[in-house]
Amino acid sequence: MTDLVRDLTEEQLLARIFPLLPKGKATVVGPGDDAAVVAAPDGQYVVSTDVLVEDRHFRARWSSGYDVGRRAAAQNLADVAAMGARPTSLVVSLVVPGDTAVEWVTSLARGLADACAPVRAGVVGGDLSGGDMIVVAVTVHGTLDWRSPVLRSGARPGDVLAHAGVRGRSAAGLALLDAGLATPGGDRHAELVGAYLRPEPPLSAGPAAARGGATAMLDLSDGLLRDAGRLARASRVSLDLDPAAFSADRKVLLPAADDVSAATGVPAAELVERWVYGGGEDHGLLATFPGTDVPAGWDAVGRVLEAGAGGPRVTVGGQESRVGPGWDHFAR
Amino acid sequence: MTDLVRDLTEEQLLARIFPLLPKGKATVVGPGDDAAVVAAPDGQYVVSTDVLVEDRHFRARWSSGYDVGRRAAAQNLADVAAMGARPTSLVVSLVVPGDTAVEWVTSLARGLADACAPVRAGVVGGDLSGGDMIVVAVTVHGTLDWRSPVLRSGARPGDVLAHAGVRGRSAAGLALLDAGLATPGGDRHAELVGAYLRPEPPLSAGPAAARGGATAMLDLSDGLLRDAGRLARASRVSLDLDPAAFSADRKVLLPAADDVSAATGVPAAELVERWVYGGGEDHGLLATFPGTDVPAGWDAVGRVLEAGAGGPRVTVGGQESRVGPGWDHFAR
Repeated sequence: MTDLVRDLTEEQLLARIFPLLPKGKATVVGPGDDAAVVAAPDGQYVVSTDVLVEDRHFRARWSSGYDVGRRAAAQNLADVAAMGARPTSLVVSLVVPGDTAVEWVTSLARGLADACAPVRAGVVGGDLSGGDMIVVAVTVHGTLDWRSPVLRSGARPGDVLAHAGVRGRSAAGLALLDAGLATPGGDRHAELVGAYLRPEPPLSAGPAAARGGATAMLDLSDGLLRDAGRLARASRVSLDLDPAAFSADRKVLLPAADDVSAATGVPAAELVERWVYGGGEDHGLLATFPGTDVPAGWDAVGRVLEAGAGGPRVTVGGQESRVGPGWDHFAR
Repeated sequence: MTDLVRDLTEEQLLARIFPLLPKGKATVVGPGDDAAVVAAPDGQYVVSTDVLVEDRHFRARWSSGYDVGRRAAAQNLADVAAMGARPTSLVVSLVVPGDTAVEWVTSLARGLADACAPVRAGVVGGDLSGGDMIVVAVTVHGTLDWRSPVLRSGARPGDVLAHAGVRGRSAAGLALLDAGLATPGGDRHAELVGAYLRPEPPLSAGPAAARGGATAMLDLSDGLLRDAGRLARASRVSLDLDPAAFSADRKVLLPAADDVSAATGVPAAELVERWVYGGGEDHGLLATFPGTDVPAGWDAVGRVLEAGAGGPRVTVGGQESRVGPGWDHFAR
């Protein structure tokens, strides 16, 4: 018989979860008291929070507890990396219906642990509650290691625009699942489906960018064009993306686009452009650097320009893009 | 016409919320970038997280957005105070259905701000999402100001057991609302109803206890007996509460107990004991101190004893209590 969450007390459930959570190198006092204590040797810490809601940010029929744990940690870790910081600790609040399998919850804990492992961050605290839908709220902390944070607002005309991480993969994976052309764990388009279910942000690229003199940086979560627009407005500059920079992405995405096109009637070339420029949730990083060189792990993808009379804007090869501005959590 | 959340984009909604949020003395980089940066001058920070779920932790027909904001902040601030720390910063994730009034969300922000004001903590970041129910997840950070954290595990036989804050008020307020004997904003039992809707934890008592040599401390959120049991087990001691310490509480609670008794048939004296010993969510602090003296703002309420052969236990006047062990979020 499957154990359900409602069969356990809160303390029993916590007793199953605690051993699975990573301890973290910076943890002074871990879970189990009223609060945790975490080291911040340089006298400050970076903090960000994100919430994942069932049927908005993931679908329980596609995403296992493990996948949701990986995703929840990854997107928060990326926010910290986007400041140029190294993640150190997480706290996690979890709302689950009573008829959720205990195994779903413990595999979420394993997913959190695996996402934290590369940076040796710890899960230092959390909270559990019942509720009518699954909600995972993660807060992540990081250390700048005595560096200054890299904000969105420092890009200067003449800088090179660069990207780290994959592009369009998550959006393609979602489109394939949506169209019934792939399944979680199946062989078809496994890499793209995996990119949607378990994004792997380029966490070390954040501190590397800071060390490399990045003038501005942000985490992509709503799509390249929309997030580039945020960087442009914060820095009061315009950005021009070089379409040739994405040739390799187009090649990777085209077979999936052909399949989705056959099922939906949307031209494959249009799908590819949508995924590359509008696809969110790969959690890559976008940054600007002085001059023309970019650090290892980064791809030059465009230029920073003067804002011009019309104000900050984002163009592709000098032209207005036909790809929409991304998506909104409430209007969806 | 009332503006609803779904009528606004996420950025428009954030633009209404940001100006309402307290900036905080320790904030280095506030909301608006990928992450915030907060000062931690003594090289470490305290962090805790709690989630409030509609119909579990509050009922939208009783609690205004303002009340929920006050409550969400207060219970998290109390967790940090219970380590002996001074709260410095919060991040808040909010899930709201699209048909929620924008005013509900902005008044939640005002509630957060008012709860933070006494300690000058800032709301430095957050996340917004749609969803089928309201969920508020708050993570709070604090500074120990170069002190060591006060854990649950340091109580020693011979210590005095002390409490700061009110007792039984929140439970009485909830019982009055439940029985239809009072209404939010009404005149009848206004103090008790207010204690339920907008608890005011004794935040300064936490650092005061640490300075006063507290050996152990925790925040009461599930009731005096249940939380005392946690402290007893963590410290491997037994605790004996002095029933005479709660005489003033009984006097305050009796008129409400008489009303609830008339409506429910439960004897008033039993209600009073339940509220005092079993009532959660007043978010008082329970601590132990060497000797017999307690700092200003604290009431001596019992003694720390050897655990004895049966292991750690909590007694009232040397007797096993007849009041239940509190409540569970999933079994409810």
